[in-house]
Amino acid sequence: MSTADSLSQTSPSLLSSTPRTTLRRHKERARTDRADLYAVLDAGLICHLGVVADGAPLVLPTAYGRDDDTLYLHGSSANGAFCSANGQQVCVTVTHMDGIVCARSVFNHSVNYRSAVVFGPATLAHDEDERWQALRIITDHLVPGRWAAARQPSRKEMAATSVLSLSLAEASVKIRTGMPADEPEDLDENVWAGVLPLSLVFGTPQTDPAVRPEIPVPAHIRDRH
Amino acid sequence: MSTADSLSQTSPSLLSSTPRTTLRRHKERARTDRADLYAVLDAGLICHLGVVADGAPLVLPTAYGRDDDTLYLHGSSANGAFCSANGQQVCVTVTHMDGIVCARSVFNHSVNYRSAVVFGPATLAHDEDERWQALRIITDHLVPGRWAAARQPSRKEMAATSVLSLSLAEASVKIRTGMPADEPEDLDENVWAGVLPLSLVFGTPQTDPAVRPEIPVPAHIRDRH
Repeated sequence: MSTADSLSQTSPSLLSSTPRTTLRRHKERARTDRADLYAVLDAGLICHLGVVADGAPLVLPTAYGRDDDTLYLHGSSANGAFCSANGQQVCVTVTHMDGIVCARSVFNHSVNYRSAVVFGPATLAHDEDERWQALRIITDHLVPGRWAAARQPSRKEMAATSVLSLSLAEASVKIRTGMPADEPEDLDENVWAGVLPLSLVFGTPQTDPAVRPEIPVPAHIRDRH
Repeated sequence: MSTADSLSQTSPSLLSSTPRTTLRRHKERARTDRADLYAVLDAGLICHLGVVADGAPLVLPTAYGRDDDTLYLHGSSANGAFCSANGQQVCVTVTHMDGIVCARSVFNHSVNYRSAVVFGPATLAHDEDERWQALRIITDHLVPGRWAAARQPSRKEMAATSVLSLSLAEASVKIRTGMPADEPEDLDENVWAGVLPLSLVFGTPQTDPAVRPEIPVPAHIRDRH
């Protein structure tokens, strides 16, 4: 079945099943519900964007936002690698590290994680309304409520910013949770086993010293966590 | 100057300056000291490995370890995309998110981060001693001391594991720290500005319920942070 066939037969609530989104190992970690994809993407802060530049892979960390089944990325209009992704296949990966899984055997060590991998051609947005909405979505993805609070982009700033859109039609989600999966014969080993949990946490907001003292830390900053 | 020329003229303590490691924007974020590369890599837990598969980019989160100027990655010998990177150009990116930088203007919002990007051909290791050392390095990178504490790999487990090595000869490091850089005319805006710090933190170790009660949480787990 071709990728196009697979995509056209996808149920709206399920993820596509194309050759590159079908897991061949650790199938138990695969999620096929579109809601899982949204959850992993919405909980992330940055993605890693993969492009092919001069025939070689290039992986760049970058901010993003999601509008329904479209992912938006932004970059400087002077960023050649970013803008050259227009019309090209890209891969966007979002990874959450939830813990280090320590097994009795070195071999069965693992990581608890949630990851989403999105494939497809990226498209430079040209419609000014779409670009404006995309920048609002990316900004509010990092800090909900920030777009309305900050000074919004000027025409010059809009021109200096490029927006790529990427459909979520072809994506896979992998999630590993829980304790190590040791071999039965290793369970008697005299080795501690378990999980070292990991989480990305926000600290106390640090106010720019140049902010006038009468301006308080706003709720959208104070409540971000 | 060709990439080969650039690499051969690199001082041992400085990073190479090749076309793809030379920053064209935000040059103030570039670090050229090799010690900065080591620091960013050694502080990371996972990397994002970029390969070209069937002409399209593929970005996979994976564990890694560093031995002097060599990066090691491991994967299942059954992982086609991983093993097919042998002899091919890859890109390995390690990113630390240190904070969200909230400016008065949407445009000047940014992220405090440390990132390393390594380019080059990956090589599947075949020497069994090198493979063994690489797995020790990757394991102890995630949890120092874990290799010696756990049951070490069997011959069968070694055969099921592939190791890729990647030279650190061609790499770039970018670091952004500090407060937002707003336009002078925005400083009077009635907008809070500052940094929302971020850090990846370890939680309290969770012991596998199947561990015998007389086995305590070892120091290498208790002290990991």
